Amino acid sequence: MTAPSRQALVPFVSVANMMKLVHQIGIERVLVDLAAEIEEDFRRWPSFDKTPRVASHSDVGVIELMPTSDGETYGFKYVNGHPSNMKKGLQTVTAFGLLADVKTGYPILLSEMTILTALRTAATSALAAKWLAPKGARSMALIGNGAQAEFQALAFKAVCGLSEIRLYDIDPAATRKCLRNLEGHGIRLVPCASAEEAIEGAEIITTVTADKQYATILSDNMAGAGVHLNAVGGDCPGKTELHRDILLRSDIFVEYPPQTRIEGEIQVLPEDHPVTELWEVISGAATGRRHPDQVTLFDSVGFAVEDFAALRYVHRQLERFAFCEPLDMIADPDDPRDLFGMLLRAA
Amino acid sequence: MTAPSRQALVPFVSVANMMKLVHQIGIERVLVDLAAEIEEDFRRWPSFDKTPRVASHSDVGVIELMPTSDGETYGFKYVNGHPSNMKKGLQTVTAFGLLADVKTGYPILLSEMTILTALRTAATSALAAKWLAPKGARSMALIGNGAQAEFQALAFKAVCGLSEIRLYDIDPAATRKCLRNLEGHGIRLVPCASAEEAIEGAEIITTVTADKQYATILSDNMAGAGVHLNAVGGDCPGKTELHRDILLRSDIFVEYPPQTRIEGEIQVLPEDHPVTELWEVISGAATGRRHPDQVTLFDSVGFAVEDFAALRYVHRQLERFAFCEPLDMIADPDDPRDLFGMLLRAA
Repeated sequence: MTAPSRQALVPFVSVANMMKLVHQIGIERVLVDLAAEIEEDFRRWPSFDKTPRVASHSDVGVIELMPTSDGETYGFKYVNGHPSNMKKGLQTVTAFGLLADVKTGYPILLSEMTILTALRTAATSALAAKWLAPKGARSMALIGNGAQAEFQALAFKAVCGLSEIRLYDIDPAATRKCLRNLEGHGIRLVPCASAEEAIEGAEIITTVTADKQYATILSDNMAGAGVHLNAVGGDCPGKTELHRDILLRSDIFVEYPPQTRIEGEIQVLPEDHPVTELWEVISGAATGRRHPDQVTLFDSVGFAVEDFAALRYVHRQLERFAFCEPLDMIADPDDPRDLFGMLLRAA
Repeated sequence: MTAPSRQALVPFVSVANMMKLVHQIGIERVLVDLAAEIEEDFRRWPSFDKTPRVASHSDVGVIELMPTSDGETYGFKYVNGHPSNMKKGLQTVTAFGLLADVKTGYPILLSEMTILTALRTAATSALAAKWLAPKGARSMALIGNGAQAEFQALAFKAVCGLSEIRLYDIDPAATRKCLRNLEGHGIRLVPCASAEEAIEGAEIITTVTADKQYATILSDNMAGAGVHLNAVGGDCPGKTELHRDILLRSDIFVEYPPQTRIEGEIQVLPEDHPVTELWEVISGAATGRRHPDQVTLFDSVGFAVEDFAALRYVHRQLERFAFCEPLDMIADPDDPRDLFGMLLRAA
């Protein structure tokens, strides 16, 4: 049996290799790089083939496929969302992703994306805040201190220059875990006993809780004038975090309206409630923050273009760092019509 | 750094391991097993979550994601179709697939599917013929002798008991390749100089050509009374193989009408042209062949449930045969909320 051809071998970035890659480059640098990469793709938003993700719902969670293409490269992510996983000691969200060459359909990268999704979600949040948050913001309330929390904190420090993070979770153990992990990263950390305490003096409020249900993490009086809201946790049908009245007082920015209207905070609003697409702000077609008293809301649910940008970034790093292994994934006989002969000769 | 947990490791069946598995069991036995597995899933068709595949088209081909779920297990296949690949020495169709546990969203199998798709496509064709072809059929015309041809020949021998295959391709080299590969498999092989010669005396006609264009492989006078047509090659928009008049004289059987009306032979017919779903025939809800003179047509485009059945079969074989390797694909920290801590500790 001959060895697989080069085309047959797909570079695979395992979890272990993703962690090595991130440490090689540095976590904060990766977050800054990813924000720049996503910003670049948001600038050329119209060039992407976009479709709402394909979701398979069950009573305990959802499994989704998120494809996109820029005409040269195709990418998709497999991602699940199972809030009850945490009680079983499993991740609520796990993911992997793939890039392929549009011209041949052959995969060019397979990568873990549980860690990469956490990084790109935080990078996207910070990118949105860069365009929407009040100038000179220094402090952020971080409500929900689960798996995504530290990534958010570091991204806002690295991309937006925040110096203070005010932490709150209904479970104090989650806050303690965050404090432990974020120690020594050059951020002033303020553990808080309530959401109300967490938002004191914060110009940015990030909500990133995990329950799959309508929950009011922020009530109406908690979103003061001039604040920027970064709503990360409301990301599937039936799951929201903000009181409806906050939405009515906010200027709302989203990734891809057809998906956000189903999954985001705005699922509780009428279908025609005005929203601005983030890519329009970044490309100059729309205005972000207009005045200091305005409440801006980034209703984040995550979109395929962000994963595409993140995968492309990882793929490019493999030119410099060999943090991948070749995967014998594509049958590629010498004579393309002789797939059966290849199988026969393997006997 | 601690080793990945068991949940984090996804069994991966490489191309090399798939070939070993097929030879361990025996190619014909695998085809018979797959036909039985697919038949079983077609019997419980209503229990599947079905959706037309999600296609990303370019001017040279298509990349598709084909998801389905039976409520317990989720599966999807990535597959491309690039007719121009052959000229570049690449496969027209390559694929891989995944199974996941619906309860947790965690993957339980990643597998090559280029070879597996060839096997399941042939097994599905033979399964349809078992229900639709004239009783006692012995001879099949095989028009198009490319990558799928030998799989079709062996499946019809193993599942339907055919003893003669009449081969024709516009490129005689393709036919010679088939003759070479099928020698010694207990089938009478008849190379033919034309499609007309190939269909002489054949009770079943299989068309499996690869050009992405409307082509008439079979003209109207070539589909005689009582014949069963197995149209495999017409499987994407703009690609058909049969003359429209044949369709009008045939009783047409399909996998999943919303997909076949876009991709199959029937894309040239009105949207309401009557078709029968194959699962209805298998489950007893509809009649297959009614009389000896009837022309039956299986307008095959391939559906996610067939891939699901094939992946489940492979997954079950891994209990007996260790033809897989563990892939470190899912980040699974001991404390599910401590994804960042896991990353930190890897430094």
